[in-house]
Amino acid sequence: MLNTPADKYQPYPAISLPDRRWPEQRITHAPRWLSTDLRDGNQALAEPMDSARKLQFWDLLLSCGFKEIEVAFPSASQTDFNFVRQLIDENRIPDDVTIQVLTQAREDLILRTFESLKGARQATVHLYNATAPLFRRLVFGMEKAQIVELATRSTSLIRKLCEENPETRWQYEYSPETFCFTEPEFALEICEAVAEIWQPCAERPMVINLPATVEVSTPNVYADQIEYFCRHFSRRGDVCISVHPHNDRGTGVASAELAVMAGADRVEGCLFGNGERTGNVCLVTLAMNLYSQGINPNLDFSDMNRVVEVVESCNQLPVHPRHPWAGRLAYTAFSGSHQDAIKKGFDARKPGERWEMPYLPVDPQDIGCTYEAVIRVNSQSGKSGSAWLIEQNHGLKLPRALQQDFSQHVQQETDNHGKEMTQNALWQLFRSRYGLVATPRFALQTYRSESQQDGQLRLTATVATGGGTRQLEGQGNGQLSAAANGLSRWLNTPFVIKDYHEHSLGERSDSRSVAYIRCLFQDGSSRWGVGIDSDVARASIQALFNAVG
Amino acid sequence: MLNTPADKYQPYPAISLPDRRWPEQRITHAPRWLSTDLRDGNQALAEPMDSARKLQFWDLLLSCGFKEIEVAFPSASQTDFNFVRQLIDENRIPDDVTIQVLTQAREDLILRTFESLKGARQATVHLYNATAPLFRRLVFGMEKAQIVELATRSTSLIRKLCEENPETRWQYEYSPETFCFTEPEFALEICEAVAEIWQPCAERPMVINLPATVEVSTPNVYADQIEYFCRHFSRRGDVCISVHPHNDRGTGVASAELAVMAGADRVEGCLFGNGERTGNVCLVTLAMNLYSQGINPNLDFSDMNRVVEVVESCNQLPVHPRHPWAGRLAYTAFSGSHQDAIKKGFDARKPGERWEMPYLPVDPQDIGCTYEAVIRVNSQSGKSGSAWLIEQNHGLKLPRALQQDFSQHVQQETDNHGKEMTQNALWQLFRSRYGLVATPRFALQTYRSESQQDGQLRLTATVATGGGTRQLEGQGNGQLSAAANGLSRWLNTPFVIKDYHEHSLGERSDSRSVAYIRCLFQDGSSRWGVGIDSDVARASIQALFNAVG
Repeated sequence: MLNTPADKYQPYPAISLPDRRWPEQRITHAPRWLSTDLRDGNQALAEPMDSARKLQFWDLLLSCGFKEIEVAFPSASQTDFNFVRQLIDENRIPDDVTIQVLTQAREDLILRTFESLKGARQATVHLYNATAPLFRRLVFGMEKAQIVELATRSTSLIRKLCEENPETRWQYEYSPETFCFTEPEFALEICEAVAEIWQPCAERPMVINLPATVEVSTPNVYADQIEYFCRHFSRRGDVCISVHPHNDRGTGVASAELAVMAGADRVEGCLFGNGERTGNVCLVTLAMNLYSQGINPNLDFSDMNRVVEVVESCNQLPVHPRHPWAGRLAYTAFSGSHQDAIKKGFDARKPGERWEMPYLPVDPQDIGCTYEAVIRVNSQSGKSGSAWLIEQNHGLKLPRALQQDFSQHVQQETDNHGKEMTQNALWQLFRSRYGLVATPRFALQTYRSESQQDGQLRLTATVATGGGTRQLEGQGNGQLSAAANGLSRWLNTPFVIKDYHEHSLGERSDSRSVAYIRCLFQDGSSRWGVGIDSDVARASIQALFNAVG
Repeated sequence: MLNTPADKYQPYPAISLPDRRWPEQRITHAPRWLSTDLRDGNQALAEPMDSARKLQFWDLLLSCGFKEIEVAFPSASQTDFNFVRQLIDENRIPDDVTIQVLTQAREDLILRTFESLKGARQATVHLYNATAPLFRRLVFGMEKAQIVELATRSTSLIRKLCEENPETRWQYEYSPETFCFTEPEFALEICEAVAEIWQPCAERPMVINLPATVEVSTPNVYADQIEYFCRHFSRRGDVCISVHPHNDRGTGVASAELAVMAGADRVEGCLFGNGERTGNVCLVTLAMNLYSQGINPNLDFSDMNRVVEVVESCNQLPVHPRHPWAGRLAYTAFSGSHQDAIKKGFDARKPGERWEMPYLPVDPQDIGCTYEAVIRVNSQSGKSGSAWLIEQNHGLKLPRALQQDFSQHVQQETDNHGKEMTQNALWQLFRSRYGLVATPRFALQTYRSESQQDGQLRLTATVATGGGTRQLEGQGNGQLSAAANGLSRWLNTPFVIKDYHEHSLGERSDSRSVAYIRCLFQDGSSRWGVGIDSDVARASIQALFNAVG
């Protein structure tokens, strides 16, 4: 990299707006959305969608609730033209959905554009021309006046063609390209001139779209530009102000949000930020950002996995695993302290309460995810993650000290292998460590207990061990202590029961119970055992056997 | 998705800062950077890096120019502990690089942390504890005073241990977790209390790090929080204010930038935004954003492909094709109008001039990319893209009308196949369309020309055609018109030469020439032919043959 980028690059031009008001604003309702996946997104694919993929994407957009969809640049390719015809001829456009098409400011292209729209119930014609100084000079060699003339002449033609085709309800959209590096005064001037021709009103709706086709400044500057425009545009009340941010600097989402705070009514973008180069702003992220703040986005992403699947298949581009709200890792916590906090959050959560969950700004279930995907276990994970997974998958609520004990085994295992543990591997490790195996060292077969006159209880049990069975006899305050005493004598190993926990698995009266027992041995060491049985007593005796065995 | 998210989610709390100053600021120099790829990034990987991958990443970070690197959470796992030891024991830390390690506020963990750092030349100990209300209540069940006491007690211990180990130059970093949803007054209070213990000064440097561990608000709110903190913190001049944004809302980059405008001196993040869930802020994007504005980022990404390769291999996660500045599509233009503008930009560009290129905010060569990757051709592309590729790869500067003609063939081809055309396919199409093939219909073998007394020129040529050869004779003002007249008579097809262009291929005197000829036939149709030869005359006659043949 050059050591002196200052010689080669210059900073974005400043805009003066010291009395800006947008930083005091909050977004309180969703803007209008326009998906341009089938146009701006599609043009940026190595292999643009064929009609089948376009239709699949179209159906997805409808199912998400989009009401304005830019479907093509019909004068630019036959495929695009045909797609518009197909939507209209096959009656695929719901009554409340408006399709939009893009055209350059050339008479033949505009005529061709209207040809493609023949018979549409409602449609938006979207005209753009280059207004930025670099484009005026380099690409078109035109003066400002010529640029304005080009825009107004084309607008006149479009208005005439709209009036000649009254069977369609028309909306007109004009984009000064690229707004974000057009002089703010000139952007105003050309939009005023265009609006003067169109004469926007309720019967003649108009969108003024202010694109950041290449993102060149921090997002606050774009917000300043939008606020400046909104405050100075004479027909502000008669038009819809739209923004169209790209993501060259990785701040497309912020640009859209600050622009909405600055007065924009509408946002154009693509699902998961598809589009030329680094893409358009991601509409999924914008919608879910609103959702996470309690604001209805008017878009439905409750089956996010399906949305990801369809978009990946149509665009033949992946959604990144860390993509906000939708990536397969977006809700995943590997870190021990994160898992611990999430576990506590779930434990404390009461149904119907406001969502307040450490590290999870929205409930993964709202986008159709299960909680299992949230917590995953590797060497960076602590006790809570493993415990949470064991509880979620198998219903076992491990006592805190057992969580601690188990996490040491998990840590050792993940440190040794350097890999994530699957949920199955975790469960197998748990089972083998705590005796939940097919043939434990001591397997309780039958037992009989009798209370004695001295209040003591006598236990006799048949225990399978190694090749044969053996009788265990013991006496104590209860069955468990009787079993412990008998076992201690049998093995000639003194120990005491240090912890005992038990709970039922499931809600039903015939559900099984799980018992957790920790035995403390004379050398100071201790071991846990777990037992599961439909008989609580059997569960606890077996847990004891597993701790000692 | 719920139709009423308002019942489940609440908006972020407001902060009042009507006299905020950050929106008037511009970033004029790079902040200090801390890479936490080996810690925060690593903890979020399904399979955390082993020591070999960690070392590879470490070397990459050094080669990019990072001077502060958080390398581990040594008290949390043996792998992490060992890695710190390895860096120190194997003398892998350059003199101007400071390693940083994270610890929780527990005495045993702090002691273990210092154990890992024994013998380091310089090191930053990074303490965090939970300060946000949700964490205080849910995770720790602690009152504010207890939280403060925990932080100050741990700070005292750290200071004591630093003083006991004077062979290391220590820096202390404290993070109130999660700053962005801690009450602003309480964040101030606890940081004041911690700084009171540490007593920051030049000999006892201190970083106060204000993390947005979960991004919950639009980025302007984070900037307000940072400015509020900077303006109210009593020891502002004695500490370095650091930010640590995550990307849950997709606005991590914006949060970092606005926070720097609001007063932050330092940014913590990861390459390509690795990290728990949606990741930390991407330091590559932040650095390149500065670079594109003429500001030296003090980081070197001049070999971006290698950086991508190493990070993908260490993290086992992809960098998205549309990732700002680094994705393989980040500089690619498929759209016709974009390609056209870029081609004009390159045509107009003079060496040493400031970079001003439509759709390309930085020169791809600055990050080690070739221009070939910039323009790719599919059905959305216009004439300029194909022409640019033919020129870049083969040196042919196609006349405008030939660009137009060729683009129609390209469009037909890409519309038919629905796929991107490779550069080779494009060249093969060009060759077959314009006669640059092994056996053209008419192949010029030898020719002889004599000027006549009437000023006319007589041409005799041997032409290979089909199976044999044939003599062509003609007369005209020059060789070309003589050939045209002869051919017209021979074929009994009247035509005129409508366009003629010629240029040399390459700079040397013995370089070949290329001739482009368009013939207009009586029915109004016209066809192009191209000829290449070391003899200009042969090139033009063959071009004529190819146009007619």
